[in-house]
Amino acid sequence: MKPILVFQTDFTYKEGAVCSMYGVVKSVDRELEIIDGTHEIPKYDIWSASYRLYQSMKFWPKGTIFVSVVDPGVGTSRRASVARTSDGYYVVSPDNGSLTHLKNWVGIREIREIDETINRLRGKDTEEVSVFHGRDLFGYCAAKLASGIITFEEVGPAYPVDQIVELPIHEPIIEEGRVLGMFEIEDPNFGNQWTNISLKEFRDAGFDFGDYIRVIISHEGEVKFDEKVLFERSFGYVEKGQPIIYNNELLKISMAVSQGNFAEEYSIGYGPEWTVEFRK
Amino acid sequence: MKPILVFQTDFTYKEGAVCSMYGVVKSVDRELEIIDGTHEIPKYDIWSASYRLYQSMKFWPKGTIFVSVVDPGVGTSRRASVARTSDGYYVVSPDNGSLTHLKNWVGIREIREIDETINRLRGKDTEEVSVFHGRDLFGYCAAKLASGIITFEEVGPAYPVDQIVELPIHEPIIEEGRVLGMFEIEDPNFGNQWTNISLKEFRDAGFDFGDYIRVIISHEGEVKFDEKVLFERSFGYVEKGQPIIYNNELLKISMAVSQGNFAEEYSIGYGPEWTVEFRK
Amino acid sequence: MKPILVFQTDFTYKEGAVCSMYGVVKSVDRELEIIDGTHEIPKYDIWSASYRLYQSMKFWPKGTIFVSVVDPGVGTSRRASVARTSDGYYVVSPDNGSLTHLKNWVGIREIREIDETINRLRGKDTEEVSVFHGRDLFGYCAAKLASGIITFEEVGPAYPVDQIVELPIHEPIIEEGRVLGMFEIEDPNFGNQWTNISLKEFRDAGFDFGDYIRVIISHEGEVKFDEKVLFERSFGYVEKGQPIIYNNELLKISMAVSQGNFAEEYSIGYGPEWTVEFRK
Repeated sequence: MKPILVFQTDFTYKEGAVCSMYGVVKSVDRELEIIDGTHEIPKYDIWSASYRLYQSMKFWPKGTIFVSVVDPGVGTSRRASVARTSDGYYVVSPDNGSLTHLKNWVGIREIREIDETINRLRGKDTEEVSVFHGRDLFGYCAAKLASGIITFEEVGPAYPVDQIVELPIHEPIIEEGRVLGMFEIEDPNFGNQWTNISLKEFRDAGFDFGDYIRVIISHEGEVKFDEKVLFERSFGYVEKGQPIIYNNELLKISMAVSQGNFAEEYSIGYGPEWTVEFRK
Repeated sequence: MKPILVFQTDFTYKEGAVCSMYGVVKSVDRELEIIDGTHEIPKYDIWSASYRLYQSMKFWPKGTIFVSVVDPGVGTSRRASVARTSDGYYVVSPDNGSLTHLKNWVGIREIREIDETINRLRGKDTEEVSVFHGRDLFGYCAAKLASGIITFEEVGPAYPVDQIVELPIHEPIIEEGRVLGMFEIEDPNFGNQWTNISLKEFRDAGFDFGDYIRVIISHEGEVKFDEKVLFERSFGYVEKGQPIIYNNELLKISMAVSQGNFAEEYSIGYGPEWTVEFRK
Repeated sequence: MKPILVFQTDFTYKEGAVCSMYGVVKSVDRELEIIDGTHEIPKYDIWSASYRLYQSMKFWPKGTIFVSVVDPGVGTSRRASVARTSDGYYVVSPDNGSLTHLKNWVGIREIREIDETINRLRGKDTEEVSVFHGRDLFGYCAAKLASGIITFEEVGPAYPVDQIVELPIHEPIIEEGRVLGMFEIEDPNFGNQWTNISLKEFRDAGFDFGDYIRVIISHEGEVKFDEKVLFERSFGYVEKGQPIIYNNELLKISMAVSQGNFAEEYSIGYGPEWTVEFRK
């Protein structure tokens, strides 16, 4: 079977962009299977694009082709690329930092710049359009690759993996009885904040399920939250409305409010300026 | 053909949860057909989950498998189950009230608790994760069932249908020339409020299309709306901006504003505290 | 292969309407392929429905059937129709202005009114329901057509193409060194405003990429924006936060803010009352 195409963008469904892009894919090959990853990546947020690829990719069948279009630099000199990961997936994306987490935590085996002279949609009045690369370049090239019209090698010329654009990744500090990390992403729907600390690291520092742990959250050095919070397997271990430390679906230490919204109720955000310390 | 999987959750598409869940399904069986029911059930709103299943299920081919994940008690002792309805559909869901309307208005023939020792995703670093049951438990088990890898009997042990958790259902009072009911759900997009009164009951009370009917809406006993309103077949029978009583797509008496938003314009909500009386 | 069904509505995914509608399609024929065009057309906004059809249709394989349900006059005398375009697509839609752009800019070859006596869903308790035409009439009829159960001729009786309901279309004024047009639609996600002026007309007036052009935007005659703005191939040619004139994905002259939101930052809307003048 031909590989599945999973799309993630910051386009939303508010207008006709996704529909046009999918039309191009189906015009290349009617048989191709298109799945919405999400079209609600925050606008221009390359970090989130990178994180979401890392979050979901490994659950898909090997060979699945992800098309990720969060592209604030569209039409400039950033490369349009197709990467092959060490574990056998493909990502069609601007090389603008969107591959950061995959490169660091999974590995990129090979990357190729899309040759626009052959792998860009022409005709249908689009000869002059430079602005919608999701439709004419990323979507079109991904469809040709999924369909088998081109091989990975025919995407365009390879370039060194160490030239891939990367955003800075922050590593936590792990000590006995103390872990210092950051909130690196959120679940914006439920208001959960996810740290960069793995469950293993957390346990290595001496914390375990059932512990009440002091949590100090600071924004640019100013303390915003300082409470003892239970670390447990799931939200239901605390009363509705109470905060909890849990290990999330990616085995990262995270914070939530049971049936509530931690981010809103405590005004906590994410990013490098949001540090979080756990202490015995 | 293998049954279709229809998903409804309160996850939204704002992050990578749906994408991961669908990846697991496709990793079980590439051929499975996944349809979005909706991922915009209001957060933690089991009542809405239950109502939406009832609203849409009967329009699908028999044998379709619904996966409903609105699960505020995830990780606690609530059962994870697969139900078979009297009319031949399957529902994979926490047994937390999400089956209320189906049990009352359609019938549940049989229900089984998912055996997590065999029907829960292991590996891919997920051994320790308890928190994302949509992906590792409900989605995974539903995919195995749809694929034919397990039979319904192999989901896990059956338990008595009368143990299914139910939310309270309110029945209307029907008299000649007077009906007393409640708004039990809304259409949040168009702002229509749907009562628990069927068209048949409404007619039995003596109301018919073309009638101007006095409508008294109260919130915890306090009158919020008291007007004569036309009962007609569709919104277009009144001027733009005017309220109307109509029978909705499920043959329940409902209220709307033509090309407007009844809920917003009159500040009307839904739930047991919102009673509505229709009088000659 | 059977034609794809692409749906666009103003229903959103907030409740069970889309799910019910798709269930009807799959109950007609399990093999039919359903794609979301968008379900986020602004409520009751026939103009947007018409524009989005025009925007995306040509990128799909010939024969694709579009189902467009933005229907403020549901249940009144407006016709429910299936149109065949000059370039070989089908549109199932209320004839309420939703075909305006296709008729003017692509061409409608033939249009037929749906015969409700045979092409409307009966049974499943829906005999008395008049209000959900998306499910019982448009979705159902489109599924029968896509499946080959009925031919285009069997949809119902043809009527003259010049009876199709049209919204007014405004043409720009093109002079040497001056173009006067309007914003006819927006990209509500990125806040870009799209004019009714084609790239070709813009160039005919003497403007070209690299020019700084005076832009005067007025709302009902009152000037809201008067600045010199760069016209370039893509957003990246100006600094983040700066406005830019660009040609959009449909080769129409448009305005944006690089990595920002032109509509919000300058409080600019669209519609006939929003005129825009470009001057040397």
